[in-house]
Amino acid sequence: MADNPQIILVGTGAVGSFYAGKLSQAGARVSVVCRSDYDIVSRNGINIGSVWGDFHFMPEMVMRNIAEYNGEADYVIVATKVLPGIDVPGIIKAGISPKTSIMLLQNGVDIEGNIAAAFPKNEIIGGLAFICVSRSDYGEVVHQDFGRIVIGRYPSGESEKVDLISKLLIRAGVPCEKDRDVIAARWKKLVWNAPFNPISVIGGGVNTQEMLGAEPVYNLVKKVMEEVVLLSEKTGHPVPRDVIQKNLDDTLVMKPYKTSMLLDYENRRPMEVDAILGNALKIARDAGVSVPCIECLYGILYLLNKQNISRK
Amino acid sequence: MADNPQIILVGTGAVGSFYAGKLSQAGARVSVVCRSDYDIVSRNGINIGSVWGDFHFMPEMVMRNIAEYNGEADYVIVATKVLPGIDVPGIIKAGISPKTSIMLLQNGVDIEGNIAAAFPKNEIIGGLAFICVSRSDYGEVVHQDFGRIVIGRYPSGESEKVDLISKLLIRAGVPCEKDRDVIAARWKKLVWNAPFNPISVIGGGVNTQEMLGAEPVYNLVKKVMEEVVLLSEKTGHPVPRDVIQKNLDDTLVMKPYKTSMLLDYENRRPMEVDAILGNALKIARDAGVSVPCIECLYGILYLLNKQNISRK
Repeated sequence: MADNPQIILVGTGAVGSFYAGKLSQAGARVSVVCRSDYDIVSRNGINIGSVWGDFHFMPEMVMRNIAEYNGEADYVIVATKVLPGIDVPGIIKAGISPKTSIMLLQNGVDIEGNIAAAFPKNEIIGGLAFICVSRSDYGEVVHQDFGRIVIGRYPSGESEKVDLISKLLIRAGVPCEKDRDVIAARWKKLVWNAPFNPISVIGGGVNTQEMLGAEPVYNLVKKVMEEVVLLSEKTGHPVPRDVIQKNLDDTLVMKPYKTSMLLDYENRRPMEVDAILGNALKIARDAGVSVPCIECLYGILYLLNKQNISRK
Repeated sequence: MADNPQIILVGTGAVGSFYAGKLSQAGARVSVVCRSDYDIVSRNGINIGSVWGDFHFMPEMVMRNIAEYNGEADYVIVATKVLPGIDVPGIIKAGISPKTSIMLLQNGVDIEGNIAAAFPKNEIIGGLAFICVSRSDYGEVVHQDFGRIVIGRYPSGESEKVDLISKLLIRAGVPCEKDRDVIAARWKKLVWNAPFNPISVIGGGVNTQEMLGAEPVYNLVKKVMEEVVLLSEKTGHPVPRDVIQKNLDDTLVMKPYKTSMLLDYENRRPMEVDAILGNALKIARDAGVSVPCIECLYGILYLLNKQNISRK
């Protein structure tokens, strides 16, 4: 595959389009699987307005179904939302050859397990994007801030495939870190996501500053963070304790930020309730770890999500 | 005072008007202090449409300020909301003589403390109403269901004044129980109020059936109840454990019920955040008892309340 691997991106949302576009810039041969935006993307590709410089991403192939792919992909990058209704193994199956690495560029914890079970012979890679990016319209992506990505072989270790993706991303100007413990990396990201995403919705549609500005909410955010770190410790992928205060301090000096979960809620889209809270809760129960704040937020978020979708 | 004690009701909301009206029916000489509804109540009194039979309550005196009272009240019944902005000692001070008992017909826990501190020589009585009643308009109260009341001397014990109120209420057809441990009685009522009131708001405006119908929320409700019972035990006023399941079972067979806190929220009125959660949390901190679900709900409710009021 040399330096121009064959990549299929599944899910042309903002995050997937951005990084696939960067990989394409770096020389990879990137095709995409779209749903609702098929017509526009197949005609025009994807325009990416970026604080790092605008660019245009024209995929090699634009498909409605991965079965249309004529080749053997080196990578399938999954960048869909993590939702109960999205059967990732079923969607990608026809595009997986023995040499294909499956990279999950998604939020949450414990999302690799069922993919690894469905494709036990394929390498699984976890990818975590730290980026403010949104899709303003079909085929139109706006990158507002940040952009760092962390990738790692699942469940742990190193691999050539991880090295290559990393090299390509760096070549395209993306700060990319490799992590030998991608499970810990997911916990670490969850330290931020687990409090801020749910509370932004449950708290009535509030941004990061509105959350941290109210003392009882600041305390709650911190408690949720502590539960995530505790869980990471108890399950063998410890996140350093000082990550909590660092997350709080960094968020306090950030511009007021509206979480992606709140955007989903306001647009009546299903929220990633399980990826962000439900999976962590399940892990906690299996491990016998008490995480009452996560449980509390989960119950409420579950209810709000249910109502929000049914109101559609 | 014999059987026709002099009573001043402060706060002519639905609950206060209903029970003061009943006391008046039983022969007590009841006056009222009103604010916004002064004109209507002083002209027409209060009409009470009740499942127990409609009746009309014409107070002896209708006052804007308790200082107008010309007599020595045997009781001052406080039936205002429990809110930071309502200075109960200041409001009732001019109506308190050495013989006046102060009865708090209000929600929540730990609400007697500052009244007892302000009037150390007066008897304090706690009153808890289990009733569905609402004010449809100034001077118009609708009693839909239930109506039992529990009263008791604060902090504990018995008294002639409690006996008399109880006798009068029973004479007027109100099921009235005396409780020698009114603090425990407040905890017991909080077992229901602490989960259902906040979650009805936080969960996006849901009734009791919508809450209990979602398993993660049922579990959350139960956990909050367990924390309240734990707190009652740790602070020496234990509520029996079986109250939890009984509350859940009873609520499951109740008609879907919209909590009073949700009505307050929807009408942009301040919610009783402290009476229902904040005071319990303070007690828990002082006693070194961990109540993470209460803490979690408190943080969110505090935020929603703040936004809700400021939107006014």
